[in-house]
Amino acid sequence: MSASRPAAAAGSEIAAVLAAAGPELGHQLDRTEERLSQVAGSHGATLARHASGTLAAGGKRLRPILVFLCGHVGSRDGERLVAAAAAVELLHMATLVHDDVLDRAALRRGRPTVVAAGGRAAATATGDLLFSRAFAELSSTGSGEAVQALSSASSALVRGELMQRADAWSPEVTPERYLERCELKTASLFEAACRLGALFSSDPAPADVLGRFGARVGLAFQILDDVLDVEGPTARTGKPRGADLLDGTVTLPLILARGRDPDLGAVELRGTATDPGRSESLCERIAATGALEDAREQALAYVSEAKSSLDALGLPEARRRPLDLVADAVVERYA
Amino acid sequence: MSASRPAAAAGSEIAAVLAAAGPELGHQLDRTEERLSQVAGSHGATLARHASGTLAAGGKRLRPILVFLCGHVGSRDGERLVAAAAAVELLHMATLVHDDVLDRAALRRGRPTVVAAGGRAAATATGDLLFSRAFAELSSTGSGEAVQALSSASSALVRGELMQRADAWSPEVTPERYLERCELKTASLFEAACRLGALFSSDPAPADVLGRFGARVGLAFQILDDVLDVEGPTARTGKPRGADLLDGTVTLPLILARGRDPDLGAVELRGTATDPGRSESLCERIAATGALEDAREQALAYVSEAKSSLDALGLPEARRRPLDLVADAVVERYA
Repeated sequence: MSASRPAAAAGSEIAAVLAAAGPELGHQLDRTEERLSQVAGSHGATLARHASGTLAAGGKRLRPILVFLCGHVGSRDGERLVAAAAAVELLHMATLVHDDVLDRAALRRGRPTVVAAGGRAAATATGDLLFSRAFAELSSTGSGEAVQALSSASSALVRGELMQRADAWSPEVTPERYLERCELKTASLFEAACRLGALFSSDPAPADVLGRFGARVGLAFQILDDVLDVEGPTARTGKPRGADLLDGTVTLPLILARGRDPDLGAVELRGTATDPGRSESLCERIAATGALEDAREQALAYVSEAKSSLDALGLPEARRRPLDLVADAVVERYA
Repeated sequence: MSASRPAAAAGSEIAAVLAAAGPELGHQLDRTEERLSQVAGSHGATLARHASGTLAAGGKRLRPILVFLCGHVGSRDGERLVAAAAAVELLHMATLVHDDVLDRAALRRGRPTVVAAGGRAAATATGDLLFSRAFAELSSTGSGEAVQALSSASSALVRGELMQRADAWSPEVTPERYLERCELKTASLFEAACRLGALFSSDPAPADVLGRFGARVGLAFQILDDVLDVEGPTARTGKPRGADLLDGTVTLPLILARGRDPDLGAVELRGTATDPGRSESLCERIAATGALEDAREQALAYVSEAKSSLDALGLPEARRRPLDLVADAVVERYA
């Protein structure tokens, strides 16, 4: 594992995926990191500093991994898979950078955000650059279908983000609306990653089946992220317990808990963020309703569904097993 | 002329271009408006409201016109030209929407900006959507070269915007640095529009020559825009006299004037925006140095250069004349 890929190497669950997929996946991920570094460094000093910092901050590179696993690592279409993997990661980064501007976030993954380090203008510009380069990367594959798939995901991400803000602090968000938001905001890019992989696979597997697999994994990922936000502790999540919730994001644990603890329904969330004691006790009250277990169970059901959906493909074990493991990795992070 | 194309029809100088190019140009522009409306309306109600409003606010559609003129209107590749024209306009709009967020601008073209109407989140999302759709539109042409050209322009726009903000209020901006910024911020998209046209022309003209033509026209456009900002009056520009200047943007008229009026070099611009009397008198002092005439002359020289550069193509009169007229249109707006 190269030093340029710190985050993908972190976490035993991802290590299991890498081991099952064979050395080619690690090689492809290294090439993806190289592409990302090149892209980040090629557009002037200011953008290079911010874009490189954002990319170097890491992340598990789950989306690139999905591209390669669905694209059948080792296929002759390696160049196009690397371009697709870089594109999905660039788009993901672009949305994070813009979200941080809107949230005035100070830290992400323990590092100062672009908006904190460079101001709103630099962060907006960095996000715009990452958006453009995502599409430029993908266009190098020569596939209009691929660009359309990424563009659909991009629209969905933007709509999901708007939906989240429209629903902020709302006592009326239903589980169905929450799931719709997760599909837009998170699952759509997981789905696109799998579709892009399928598109450039030398051993074509149906893009619809793999896309659905990715969408289900993405849903589980988001739900578990929301469980973890309430569950804490900070040492595991890298952010204060209940941070998203107290930022106004109404997540499944809160929605379920509100249905069970009538007093909780009446709690006014606004202003809690500035009072750690109050936010800690709110998380405890949500946990006390059993909402975290139920939300986690829903997520696990999506993971099972994702894995079963692969049965239809009749993949050989060597291709199937890494896909099962990456779906499990989403869960194991929270075990 | 259809009601859906209010702005392109406005202005006698654009009318002259339309007349010289023949009815096909009007038809292509109408189709571009239809595409833009479809794109704006297809991504959920919130985005539809903001994106449609932005596109409906108009503008002269100079960039789409350049695509069609360089692409040889009436060519068999009409569909791809319409996609390219829509793409450049979408990218242009995306940058305007994000600029307005950063400037906290209330009005653009006499209408409330997206950030004023919907807030920062809606405006950031709308810009992101327009960015994505620009690339999706262009990818429908199946040309990776086209997507690369738009993506290069997009990087340049972002870098130019950052450069402008880095240079805000600075007493040390040289004419060379000002021109470099204009090339990034404005000329790059004019150049891309011409290159895209050339790329999809059924009667191929060298993309480099047409790209250079577009870049020169774009430079002239920006310089004249900056002259007009100082010259006023509001009735002609739709904004307070000196608005850009007093926002911190150091433009050619100010740079030239500072070299001639030593007292002007020492004037502190910050805070002038809130004092209409002071900003009016600053504009008068810049004008009194003769800087406006000199800046305008530089712009006219770029227009001449743009037009002469076309000589090398030996275009038939019917293709050449609309290109000359669109270059002139940039100037005549300020005559």
